[in-house]
Amino acid sequence: MSQERTEGDLRNTGLSLKHDREWDYELDRIVSEVKERGATSVGLQFPEGLKRRGPAVVDDLRSELPDDVSVLLSGEHCYGACDLDTDLMRRTDVFVHFGHSPMKESEKIIYVPLFSNVDVFPIMEQAFDEKLDPPGEDEDVGLVTTAQHMNKFDEMREWLEDRGYTVHTRRGDERLTHEGQVLGCNYASADVDADQILYVGGGKFHPLGLAMEHPEKTVVIADPVNNSLDLADSEQFMKQRYAAVHRAMDADTWGVIFSTKIGQGRWETAQEIVESNDDAYMITMDEVTPDRLTNFGLDAYVNTACPRITTDDGPQFKQPILTPQEYRIAVGDESLEDLEFDTFHGTW
Amino acid sequence: MSQERTEGDLRNTGLSLKHDREWDYELDRIVSEVKERGATSVGLQFPEGLKRRGPAVVDDLRSELPDDVSVLLSGEHCYGACDLDTDLMRRTDVFVHFGHSPMKESEKIIYVPLFSNVDVFPIMEQAFDEKLDPPGEDEDVGLVTTAQHMNKFDEMREWLEDRGYTVHTRRGDERLTHEGQVLGCNYASADVDADQILYVGGGKFHPLGLAMEHPEKTVVIADPVNNSLDLADSEQFMKQRYAAVHRAMDADTWGVIFSTKIGQGRWETAQEIVESNDDAYMITMDEVTPDRLTNFGLDAYVNTACPRITTDDGPQFKQPILTPQEYRIAVGDESLEDLEFDTFHGTW
Repeated sequence: MSQERTEGDLRNTGLSLKHDREWDYELDRIVSEVKERGATSVGLQFPEGLKRRGPAVVDDLRSELPDDVSVLLSGEHCYGACDLDTDLMRRTDVFVHFGHSPMKESEKIIYVPLFSNVDVFPIMEQAFDEKLDPPGEDEDVGLVTTAQHMNKFDEMREWLEDRGYTVHTRRGDERLTHEGQVLGCNYASADVDADQILYVGGGKFHPLGLAMEHPEKTVVIADPVNNSLDLADSEQFMKQRYAAVHRAMDADTWGVIFSTKIGQGRWETAQEIVESNDDAYMITMDEVTPDRLTNFGLDAYVNTACPRITTDDGPQFKQPILTPQEYRIAVGDESLEDLEFDTFHGTW
Repeated sequence: MSQERTEGDLRNTGLSLKHDREWDYELDRIVSEVKERGATSVGLQFPEGLKRRGPAVVDDLRSELPDDVSVLLSGEHCYGACDLDTDLMRRTDVFVHFGHSPMKESEKIIYVPLFSNVDVFPIMEQAFDEKLDPPGEDEDVGLVTTAQHMNKFDEMREWLEDRGYTVHTRRGDERLTHEGQVLGCNYASADVDADQILYVGGGKFHPLGLAMEHPEKTVVIADPVNNSLDLADSEQFMKQRYAAVHRAMDADTWGVIFSTKIGQGRWETAQEIVESNDDAYMITMDEVTPDRLTNFGLDAYVNTACPRITTDDGPQFKQPILTPQEYRIAVGDESLEDLEFDTFHGTW
C-alpha cells in the first residue's frame, strides 16, 4: 500500500471543512472491500457539501487500487440516503455513498457515514442552563440528533443523565439506522414519553418538522455547528402551509408527482389520488424542481416525494404544491385542523 | 370508441401552437397499439414545448382505453430522441415519445413525430430570389431540414427541381431517421456534392453547427416559422469556442462528463481522456447543468454528452466546458486550426 498522502487522504488528519467539522472517510475499508469483491469499477456519491472532496478521494483510490479499476463520481445532486444514484449503481461493481447513514443495507453499497467532530457539549450546556426544564421540574427529556452527530449519541445521553435527567430515546422505524436519529422526513424517534425534546444538530428544517410532528412537546434546538440555541416554533411555518392549501382549493387540475428516486417513491399514495380524481395526472420525475413542472400548466401539484421539497422549496414553485394530506384537505376530504407534517416511513 | 372530443383530442383540428404549427398526435395509432399489446401502463414523454398538451392527451387515452390502464407523464426535461426517459420506460408497458423522429426502433417505444404544418414555400421563394445562387450559375443545391418539416421534404425537393436545380440529399447515418434530416448534433446529411446548402427550419443553432461542420459550403437558412432568411455565419461562434479553449489551457484539473441519457453516452471518448490524464475525473450524470458541476470545484470540464450543451449553454457554466476535441487542443494534442464542430454519431 502506498505511503503517499494526497490532499484527499484524511486518514490521519481528518477532513477539515468549515465549522471545524472533520470527517474520516474510511479509505482503508473501501479499498479492502473493493479488492475483496474483485470489483473493476467503483462509483462514488457525495452530498453537495462534500462533492469538492470527490476528486481527491478518487486520487487516493487510484493510488491504492489496481490500475484496471475505474472510479466514477456521481454528478447527480444528492440529498440523503433516500437519494442513491441508481444509474451509477447499475454501472459499477461497488457503489460508495458518503455522508449519510444507511437507509437500507445492500451487498453492492458501502455506506460511509462521515461523522462530525464538532464539540456538542458547550451548546448542550447552554441548553441546560437556558431552555430545558431543570430535572427538578421535569426529569424526562427526549434526545434526538442527525446522522452526522450519531457517533456522540451515547456521550450526549450520559451527559444528560449526569445532570439528573431520565433520557428517553428510541429508534423510530426501519427508515432510520440509529436510535435517536431523525431525518428531515422522519421524526419517529422523538415519539418518546417526555414533554421536552432536545434536538442536537444544525439547520432549522429538522426541528421544525419535529415540532410540527410533535406539537404537544417543547423542542429545544441546540445547534453545535452554528453555536445557536432556540425553541422550535412552527407557527410561521403552519401559516405558510395554510396559505398553500387555500390557494390550491381553487385548482381544477392537479399534477401528482411520483419520484423515481429509490427512497422517495410513494406509489400507492400517488396512485390513490389519480384514481379518485379525473382531473389529476401522474407525473414521474427524479429531481422535483419548479422548472420541471411549469410547462405542464396544471393548477396545483401534490408531491409524494421528499416532504422537504413541499415545505422548504414550496414558495419557489409558481403553483401551489401540497403534501398528500394537504391535497385531501384542499379537496374537502379532511379538515384543515387535522393538518400534520408530512413524514416518510419505510425504505424501498 | 367514445365520440367525445376533449381539448387534447386533435384528430380533426390539429394541435394549434404558436407560429401556426399544428400537430396530429395519432391518438388512434397509440390506442390500438396499447390494446394490441395488452398494456396496463402507458408512459408519455413530450418535449418542453408540448408538455402543456400532456394532460389533455392523457384525458383522451383514459376515455379510449380500459379503466385498468394507467397513463403516466414523464416530468423529466426532454431535448430530443436521444433523451428518452428510460426510468419511465422501465416502469411502463408501452412508452410513447412525442415530437421527435425515431433514433432507434424498439418494441416498447411508439414514436409520434408531430410534424409542423407551417407553409415552407414562401420563405423558400425568398431564399431563391435573394440568397441561393441561381441554377444558371450553380445548379447544385443540398437540401436539409429538421424532423418537424420532414413531411414536406419531397415537396421541397420538387419545388427546387422545378426551378432548375439538381437537388442533392442523403441520409446521414443511423442516428438520423430520414434522408435530408439534420439534428443539432449531426449534420451528416449535408455531406453532399453541392457548394450551397438550403436549410429549411427554425432556430439558429442547427444551421450554425451545419456551417461549422461544412465550412466550405454556403448555408442558406430559410426559417418558415419565424419567416426569416439568413446566411449561417460561424465566425462569432468560433471566437466563443477559441476563448473557451484558451481559458481551459490553464486548467490543472478536469471533470470529464459522461451522460447517462440513453442517446448521449460516449463512454470510450470519456474513458480515453480519464485514462490519459491523472488529473481528469469521470463524472456521470443525466442532465448536464452548471449547478451539478459547481460543487466539484474542478478547473475545467469536458462534455462528452450532447454537443449543444457545450456550445449553446457553455457561457452559463462558471468554468470552461469543452468538447472532446477542444480538450485535446487545450492539452496540446491537436492544433487550434483543426477545430471542428462536435458531432454525435450512432445511436445506443
